[in-house]
Amino acid sequence: MDITTQVGIIGAGPAGLTLALLLAQQGIESVILENRSRDYVESRVRAGLLEQNTVDLLRDLGVADRLDREGLQHHGVYLSFNGVRRRVPFAELTGGRCITIYGQQEVVKDLIAKRLAQAGAIRFEAVATQIEGLDGHSPSVRFEQGGATHTLHCDYVAGCDGYHGISRAALPAGSYQEHRIDYPFSWLGILAHAAPASDELIYAYHERGFALLSLRSPTVSRLYLQVPNDERMDDWTDNRIWDELDLRLGDGTDFKLNRGAIFEKGITPMRSFMIDNMQYGRLFLAGDAAHIVPPTGGKGLNLAVADVQLMAAALIEAYQTGQTHRLNSYTTDCLRRVWRVQDFSNTMTYLFHKQAPHGSFENKLQQARFDYIVYSKAMATTIAENYVGLKTVYPADVVR
Amino acid sequence: MDITTQVGIIGAGPAGLTLALLLAQQGIESVILENRSRDYVESRVRAGLLEQNTVDLLRDLGVADRLDREGLQHHGVYLSFNGVRRRVPFAELTGGRCITIYGQQEVVKDLIAKRLAQAGAIRFEAVATQIEGLDGHSPSVRFEQGGATHTLHCDYVAGCDGYHGISRAALPAGSYQEHRIDYPFSWLGILAHAAPASDELIYAYHERGFALLSLRSPTVSRLYLQVPNDERMDDWTDNRIWDELDLRLGDGTDFKLNRGAIFEKGITPMRSFMIDNMQYGRLFLAGDAAHIVPPTGGKGLNLAVADVQLMAAALIEAYQTGQTHRLNSYTTDCLRRVWRVQDFSNTMTYLFHKQAPHGSFENKLQQARFDYIVYSKAMATTIAENYVGLKTVYPADVVR
Repeated sequence: MDITTQVGIIGAGPAGLTLALLLAQQGIESVILENRSRDYVESRVRAGLLEQNTVDLLRDLGVADRLDREGLQHHGVYLSFNGVRRRVPFAELTGGRCITIYGQQEVVKDLIAKRLAQAGAIRFEAVATQIEGLDGHSPSVRFEQGGATHTLHCDYVAGCDGYHGISRAALPAGSYQEHRIDYPFSWLGILAHAAPASDELIYAYHERGFALLSLRSPTVSRLYLQVPNDERMDDWTDNRIWDELDLRLGDGTDFKLNRGAIFEKGITPMRSFMIDNMQYGRLFLAGDAAHIVPPTGGKGLNLAVADVQLMAAALIEAYQTGQTHRLNSYTTDCLRRVWRVQDFSNTMTYLFHKQAPHGSFENKLQQARFDYIVYSKAMATTIAENYVGLKTVYPADVVR
Repeated sequence: MDITTQVGIIGAGPAGLTLALLLAQQGIESVILENRSRDYVESRVRAGLLEQNTVDLLRDLGVADRLDREGLQHHGVYLSFNGVRRRVPFAELTGGRCITIYGQQEVVKDLIAKRLAQAGAIRFEAVATQIEGLDGHSPSVRFEQGGATHTLHCDYVAGCDGYHGISRAALPAGSYQEHRIDYPFSWLGILAHAAPASDELIYAYHERGFALLSLRSPTVSRLYLQVPNDERMDDWTDNRIWDELDLRLGDGTDFKLNRGAIFEKGITPMRSFMIDNMQYGRLFLAGDAAHIVPPTGGKGLNLAVADVQLMAAALIEAYQTGQTHRLNSYTTDCLRRVWRVQDFSNTMTYLFHKQAPHGSFENKLQQARFDYIVYSKAMATTIAENYVGLKTVYPADVVR
């Protein structure tokens, strides 16, 4: 079967869905191809930290009613180093901006509901296999659905299909440089039915390694431990996990986590990945298809949403004025924020993970850097402003 | 011969001389032993960048008349990356603080003149060979002068004798941990009779390596190039040095250095060094005897002066009240600032030196960090406030 639309979107994650709604606001039609089922994408556990920009955008799109009811606004974050815990107050340092805790799968549910309410097309279990015609004016996406092969004809293709998708592979070899850092540690993460022991996140350096107290709701805790890359989940009983979290997150008082049933656990390697070109002909990439940041800064979803804001603006310009300035500069415009976020995610990773031996020169510099955040309002502000998210479009005009 | 004083000071550099004057202000007597001649210490070329704190202290000591006439106040610094040059305005970001360009040897001349005018003892060409009795109440310093061996008896010994001095070696083995980083590059530095081409310093990253435009006076330029550790001075003709400086310091305009006769040149390895204990019994170390920072932040002299401010305050407390609280916490009080300065010097070194291959992930993060200084007032403030110097005593109470 042949289908025709204006923008063909591969992937029904936050990037693809947000793009479809942004385009629909301006009357631009799109079709989303998603290789998984609706149930699958609505339940897979991912990030849960929304920047101010992301929340503002979801409100603009009219998909923030439940977010505003159920999301938890955080106006600060706790940073801890060797048991000394200090708070970085966002509102005070960023003129009232904050972050919101709301699971990615909840965002996806809200976006899908809106998309379907607008009678917009999402084809679930539609596996994109080939992107063609990128050099011309009429690209197309071949996909398999219901045992048959179909073709989606469109003006532009948006590759929002994640790290393992086919979009990145459609860029010609040699058209980009790939950057990759594989960190020498992983995160052991759990979800537990337990009231969070802190009202705000706690990032902790401990000589045994990093720990993070996060949450999903007033009754669900999300907790992480730095572990070696070859760690085996089998070696971690629930009790051992809780004991280790208590140890690393302790602040010298009788602070203890609330324990509860662990209903998900896993070990995830930490990496940075990106390519320095996000477009070719009529194909434009966004989100994990083009870049992965370490989760320490909570930026993955927010960066994907920032990408598609730029992509939507560029496509809207092209459809409404025939101008392609913004399409032409899409990669350049995105990469400014991507590099900023890579640096921030890297900085947070460096600050709180054990890397050099405890007590070494490098480790003492790490301590000095933490102490400086505590001492200097300017340094605390750099953490706060990156954490809540720099203004919507990381300004194009300030740097070359 | 046996001599007796209250505080025996080894070394007539900025640390030892400043300490002597601070103690004399409170009527505490000292003797300075200096193994070099007066002429030598007054002419050796060292740093030339004074923090606001250092200038304030020299004024308090009444040794700033010539500094105030001849020193050049700088209210900002230029940072350059791949040819893009931006200014960090100190005054605006730090509430009016600034740095002053004035050669270390000029500071030393002024301090020596004041010390001698007060009839304070400085024994030049007096080579300290042994420190004894540190566990008791009457330590002593053995020294050779004029072909004879003498003993200086005192209440306290101040080790201000630099990296190669004997004071650090007098700390018992095992009483401290040593930290050392040898960087994989050196600085090729020149002094030239040439008017500086910029009114303020320029720190530049270039894909061929770091370059720094500094100055000593309106007619003397001080310039540096990053070179490999095994570089030979013989391979650098004057013309090659000027050409390379022009290339690395360029900003895409017709900016060129003013060339002039090079009257000093040399290659200096870059290192960080420190010990985490600066005292034992009645011996207290200050300055290079205890720590070396990479010169990128211009902090060596300023850190030495900050050390002896704390040492003087502690000794004055002990003489005036009999209390030794501040003497006991001397190391802890100093190390806060030392680690802060190590981190800042390291950060500036990392920011502007070529380390990872040009275009690599690490190098792109370096670029992102520079871009962020340009973008963010908070980030620019962290550079400015460290550069002009954090307030006199890096606060003891904010961090453990």
